[in-house]
Amino acid sequence: MPVLDLSASSVDLTRAICDIPSVSGDEVTLADAIDAAIRPLSHLTLHRDGDTIIARTDLGRAQRVVIAGHIDTVPVNGNLPTRDVVIDGEPHLWGRGTVDMKAGVAVQLKLAAELVSPRVDITWMWYDHEEVDADLNGLTRLSRTRPDLFAGDFAILGEPSGGEVEGGCNGNLRAIVRTHGVRAHSARSWIGENAIHRAAPILARLAEYRPRDVTVEGLTYREGLNAVRIGGGVAGNVIPDLCEVEVNYRFAPSRDAAEASRHVRSVFEGFDVEIVDLAEGARPGLDAPLAQEFVAAVGAVPRPKYGWTDVARFSALGVPAVNYGPGDPHLAHHDEERVPLAQIEAVERGLRSWLTAP
Amino acid sequence: MPVLDLSASSVDLTRAICDIPSVSGDEVTLADAIDAAIRPLSHLTLHRDGDTIIARTDLGRAQRVVIAGHIDTVPVNGNLPTRDVVIDGEPHLWGRGTVDMKAGVAVQLKLAAELVSPRVDITWMWYDHEEVDADLNGLTRLSRTRPDLFAGDFAILGEPSGGEVEGGCNGNLRAIVRTHGVRAHSARSWIGENAIHRAAPILARLAEYRPRDVTVEGLTYREGLNAVRIGGGVAGNVIPDLCEVEVNYRFAPSRDAAEASRHVRSVFEGFDVEIVDLAEGARPGLDAPLAQEFVAAVGAVPRPKYGWTDVARFSALGVPAVNYGPGDPHLAHHDEERVPLAQIEAVERGLRSWLTAP
Repeated sequence: MPVLDLSASSVDLTRAICDIPSVSGDEVTLADAIDAAIRPLSHLTLHRDGDTIIARTDLGRAQRVVIAGHIDTVPVNGNLPTRDVVIDGEPHLWGRGTVDMKAGVAVQLKLAAELVSPRVDITWMWYDHEEVDADLNGLTRLSRTRPDLFAGDFAILGEPSGGEVEGGCNGNLRAIVRTHGVRAHSARSWIGENAIHRAAPILARLAEYRPRDVTVEGLTYREGLNAVRIGGGVAGNVIPDLCEVEVNYRFAPSRDAAEASRHVRSVFEGFDVEIVDLAEGARPGLDAPLAQEFVAAVGAVPRPKYGWTDVARFSALGVPAVNYGPGDPHLAHHDEERVPLAQIEAVERGLRSWLTAP
Repeated sequence: MPVLDLSASSVDLTRAICDIPSVSGDEVTLADAIDAAIRPLSHLTLHRDGDTIIARTDLGRAQRVVIAGHIDTVPVNGNLPTRDVVIDGEPHLWGRGTVDMKAGVAVQLKLAAELVSPRVDITWMWYDHEEVDADLNGLTRLSRTRPDLFAGDFAILGEPSGGEVEGGCNGNLRAIVRTHGVRAHSARSWIGENAIHRAAPILARLAEYRPRDVTVEGLTYREGLNAVRIGGGVAGNVIPDLCEVEVNYRFAPSRDAAEASRHVRSVFEGFDVEIVDLAEGARPGLDAPLAQEFVAAVGAVPRPKYGWTDVARFSALGVPAVNYGPGDPHLAHHDEERVPLAQIEAVERGLRSWLTAP
């Protein structure tokens, strides 16, 4: 089993945990290494649940902060082991997981080991299966069996945010819009009804759609409504009787699940619409006193988070949550994923200074 | 090996050869049975090529007629063995192949055996792989290796035509119309370009398209332009960078391949169009003297054939050709495929009377 040295720099620790591949479903080696490095620390109480590891201080502080990061990545695509690269004169660490989100996890592991007496109690969470179906997510599992572990006054997810604070997140809806027709031999097409032709207005409405920009608690969220898949057809000589357009609606946290569903149904009025996946977003939560202190301490200008992240899970549990981690979110899942070393160090400094402030 | 009794009625012979399944690629059992039944007949010279059987008279007649039928079927779907059914008081034979086109083949086999001295020389052709890629078709193979066997003054294909004479056939073109875009995460869709949205005008043009009716040599051909497949999409959270619409153009025999291509390219002007399959139609050929005699003898009112058939192959070789066979072409490939017994007998009478007229 690889051994993690938590006294190494956060950059070296990032390199070490990126070089332990942990594609969703295959996190056990990394989880075991984290377990072995954290378990001996006497200031932390460790809970292991599958490949999710929870480590808590119990100092009797007035407030508790949850700091969490997922340890899985999307599939490796020739981008491991990591490499040191210099881009525009700036040193980077390149490879799968460097952005999403092992640099964030490395900073958390180092601080978990070193901060024996932080100003707030801390619940560290390193969890599995974030990059796949929500049903498999370690936090989904744990929120059912141990909701008490999620208690806190504020939560910080280490998702990549370019070292800035990204508040809340957009909601996420997927729907299938279907057209129906009547099959016939394409040599006698007038006998049938072409379901693909009937999908013309669906694509026209998508092409004409102008998404909203919505300001929530001072942050402006950009929405989006897009086809992500289209399919139809039986054979090269058959008029098709079914066409399916899968659409993805990313909606600002001002809109709840019911409103988002109504909006999508109204855009595709007259068509058969099935909502197949729906997760509400999260309001920025920056009006919470701890959130305001945190933003001030790390010296960040809060921005909106567009992608759905597990901050929404904490938000739904009544815990205000933000994203704060190294790495450009545009490079998440990218084959050229890479993080500036200085950003890893800056996030370490930011978290450390806030958690140790007198 | 099943034994075929060519002295049985054409109805019983239809039943017998339908009950020997011969889905394309699996014709050998039926081909062997036909070979065994025809080879002993001294008035015919037999050529076997794979699962295609050619049997010729050589009586030194002034004219030669080719009479052909394919022995393969589309896949069986719970519709064998055949059954006798009565629909609206009329006896039918139900099951795969009864329409397309073993009833026609049965009539041909019976007449091949019985007509030892027809008024014209006859080349009978029973061939394999008609229901699949043209490259596999027994006639494609034979037209390369033995073009001499296709010589004739007139050709009759036994394809289902409801016992009427169907002249010529529409041409058939398939093309892929593509749109391109730029991939991006769907949470930040404004960074990408959605290829599915860009396909909106393609579907709109298809939905608005009004196909022509074209009269050629007295027969009116209905054209059609249809999407037969659409596909696009990478994943549920990715803006797609490619969308493909496969279109099928059935065009009247007044238009040649180049004109058909130009027409499809002009409909989808501004888009990337790739022609993937193109077969010209066949003019009705009903002005040939033998064709006129034939139509008069069988007492039919010629109609246009919409689907592409091997008559186009003969037409391209300069041999006027028509379709004449029992069975409703709308029921070809249908799971409820069935042929009226009276139509089998009528086609037998029609062919026999013309081929034996003094």
